Amino acid sequence: MTHDVKLTYAALKQCDLDDPLLAKRAAFHLPDNTLYLDGNSLGAMPKIAAERAAEVVSQQWGEHLITSWNRHNWIDLPFSVGDKIGRLIGAAPGQVVCCDSTSVNLFKVLCAALSLQPKRHTVLSVNGNFPTDLYMVEGLSQVTGTQRCQLKLVDDAKLEAAINQEVAVLLLTQVDFRSGRLFDMAKLTRLAQDKGALVIWDLAHSAGALPVAVDECNVDFAIGCGYKYFNGGPGAPAFIYAARRHHSTISQPLTGWMGHKTPFSFDTRYEKAPGIAQFLTGTPAVLSMSVLDAALEVFADVDMQQLRQKSLALSDCFQQLLSQHECLRGLERITPYNADERGSQLAYRHPDAYALCQALIKQGVIADFRAPDILRLGFTPLYLRYVDIWTAVEILADVMRSGEYLKTEYQVKHKVT
Amino acid sequence: MTHDVKLTYAALKQCDLDDPLLAKRAAFHLPDNTLYLDGNSLGAMPKIAAERAAEVVSQQWGEHLITSWNRHNWIDLPFSVGDKIGRLIGAAPGQVVCCDSTSVNLFKVLCAALSLQPKRHTVLSVNGNFPTDLYMVEGLSQVTGTQRCQLKLVDDAKLEAAINQEVAVLLLTQVDFRSGRLFDMAKLTRLAQDKGALVIWDLAHSAGALPVAVDECNVDFAIGCGYKYFNGGPGAPAFIYAARRHHSTISQPLTGWMGHKTPFSFDTRYEKAPGIAQFLTGTPAVLSMSVLDAALEVFADVDMQQLRQKSLALSDCFQQLLSQHECLRGLERITPYNADERGSQLAYRHPDAYALCQALIKQGVIADFRAPDILRLGFTPLYLRYVDIWTAVEILADVMRSGEYLKTEYQVKHKVT
Repeated sequence: MTHDVKLTYAALKQCDLDDPLLAKRAAFHLPDNTLYLDGNSLGAMPKIAAERAAEVVSQQWGEHLITSWNRHNWIDLPFSVGDKIGRLIGAAPGQVVCCDSTSVNLFKVLCAALSLQPKRHTVLSVNGNFPTDLYMVEGLSQVTGTQRCQLKLVDDAKLEAAINQEVAVLLLTQVDFRSGRLFDMAKLTRLAQDKGALVIWDLAHSAGALPVAVDECNVDFAIGCGYKYFNGGPGAPAFIYAARRHHSTISQPLTGWMGHKTPFSFDTRYEKAPGIAQFLTGTPAVLSMSVLDAALEVFADVDMQQLRQKSLALSDCFQQLLSQHECLRGLERITPYNADERGSQLAYRHPDAYALCQALIKQGVIADFRAPDILRLGFTPLYLRYVDIWTAVEILADVMRSGEYLKTEYQVKHKVT
Repeated sequence: MTHDVKLTYAALKQCDLDDPLLAKRAAFHLPDNTLYLDGNSLGAMPKIAAERAAEVVSQQWGEHLITSWNRHNWIDLPFSVGDKIGRLIGAAPGQVVCCDSTSVNLFKVLCAALSLQPKRHTVLSVNGNFPTDLYMVEGLSQVTGTQRCQLKLVDDAKLEAAINQEVAVLLLTQVDFRSGRLFDMAKLTRLAQDKGALVIWDLAHSAGALPVAVDECNVDFAIGCGYKYFNGGPGAPAFIYAARRHHSTISQPLTGWMGHKTPFSFDTRYEKAPGIAQFLTGTPAVLSMSVLDAALEVFADVDMQQLRQKSLALSDCFQQLLSQHECLRGLERITPYNADERGSQLAYRHPDAYALCQALIKQGVIADFRAPDILRLGFTPLYLRYVDIWTAVEILADVMRSGEYLKTEYQVKHKVT
């Protein structure tokens, strides 16, 4: 697909016919008359997820009750789901566990990383990082005091220069939630480790969206989300990656019974489990985790390089179609153009981004708004077709041309946007 | 029901006919040929829970996708479910929130309580407390240092004497997970507060099992579990109670975006939400929480005094039937006899408790084993009948008399017991 030739619907239809991932679309339930460009907020529902939810509720819980901990191996879910995620982020088995929320998991790995850095206390991140990541560092500072944990924020452009021998932990989100900017994991990890720092990567917007190689990049710790590109359902549990080389020496303070060496001996004193299990805290969220487990089966035969290619192609296609509409020139792209520097979304600044987003949703194109003025579109190659991109841009152009978005009803902000 | 007259099956059948809660049983799915005496580990499945799970997965997620945060009010679930729980533990609205696991929630309220006690650092509890509660205190000590948080453990018998002016926080589980012993919440809360201490009650084995009155007892903080007596499903989210008088002055370190005053403004700095929302951390576990929400509807018209009466009657009935079987004399009761001193379970010590439990399960009576030698039986008045108790004891007597439990197959320990 070149940018010189005008893209046509027919050409896009052909792209779909040539698409090796097209068949995957059938694995998802997609509502009629809806184009879903928000899989980076909440992934669409894999059909197998509905089946698994029914099975876990009615059969495993309803029929087999407490015996399911053994009979259906609920007790091992955090590890089996963890390993499935591990395969998709380039982690060898035994280094990923599924549990809790991304925020809670960040607290754990942050403490684990700092436990290896007795002489340093600076946690370096960027101003644009997802706020919850920054809040969790602030929260930890509050209990440890700033002499053990202090957040330092810089702009993206000053990041590399700020990585020095004061830094205990470099905390970055691989793909920026607003702009979709992709950091170079290999390079930044190396830069940090060269200065004696440890790295924590937040993979919320990259896991399941592009090939990630935590082992190969020698990453120390990572966290991520189950309900975006993994399609694990609303509020699906999150995950933790901790490189095996750290397992025996780290500690983290959310020492619940599931992280104990022998939880069912009910010892009065805590003794941490060996390996990745030490990151478990309370009872696993069996129902949600089972649904995520089912959703991950959809990825079992997916080639992540192929997925990445389609993700970039869909994004480029969107951009080219946009440029074919005079009326859409007012959308200022903030996502980098270079393929190596972006994830699986495009973001555009526009003074009426909120109203545009609402008007689009009304017309069946589900996009996302991020304060104060960003329209965000996520491209999920497992269930989006090239022709969907065509239709989405046509509707966007209609909304813009007609001034539909200027109606009062689209200006009123909802609780969640 | 008196202890002098021999209990008969006919008498128990009459008890069922006279039971005002009998109709509630129809709200639950109960497997055939199973007597479930383990609702204190994992509550049975309310039929409405299966319906809600299907609706949330297929309709709310599958059809309405991201728009459900507003359309189905996912964003308010932690508060609406919290208030439903609040009603059952005697908390006025706005003081309970549903989130995370019991262990993670304990960490939050522990920090919140200690934030009000700058001059004290002792967290007093009892040796027999549920281990995860003690582990979480240990974990916090690890990051704060013992000069801010130090666990002190005493035996139950020495508890009152140990409540002195050194104690920052008294941390107790109302009903002991092993013995079923019930602490006097009103008295112990008063004793602690008279010495300037704050109290945290773990309601894991009391919420939904008996009338709890946190407001009336002037409790400071409480936590509890969604999957036991509330029947919220495996790994259902837990809850936090924090008395309104503390909301403006406390702080806790798991400061995720959902606890921010305005999460969707994506500010770089954390500013805590007013009220109970400050205890939220990451994205709510929508699917699991919705199922718990449905399960709580079963309680909407339940009189907790009536539930308590039946719970005690079922327990007494079990004990009396036990005493009618010569062969069951070897079971040494460790649960207090006084109704004011026990929850909704009975626990018996026996050298072969593990094998007995396994043999019972094989015969369809699901009981629970707690290391090293305790057979635990939970009584859940919403779905157990008096005649079920009769049948359970008959089977227990058969297993004991026949020596069935001595077979090798029952001696082999499973991963989870």
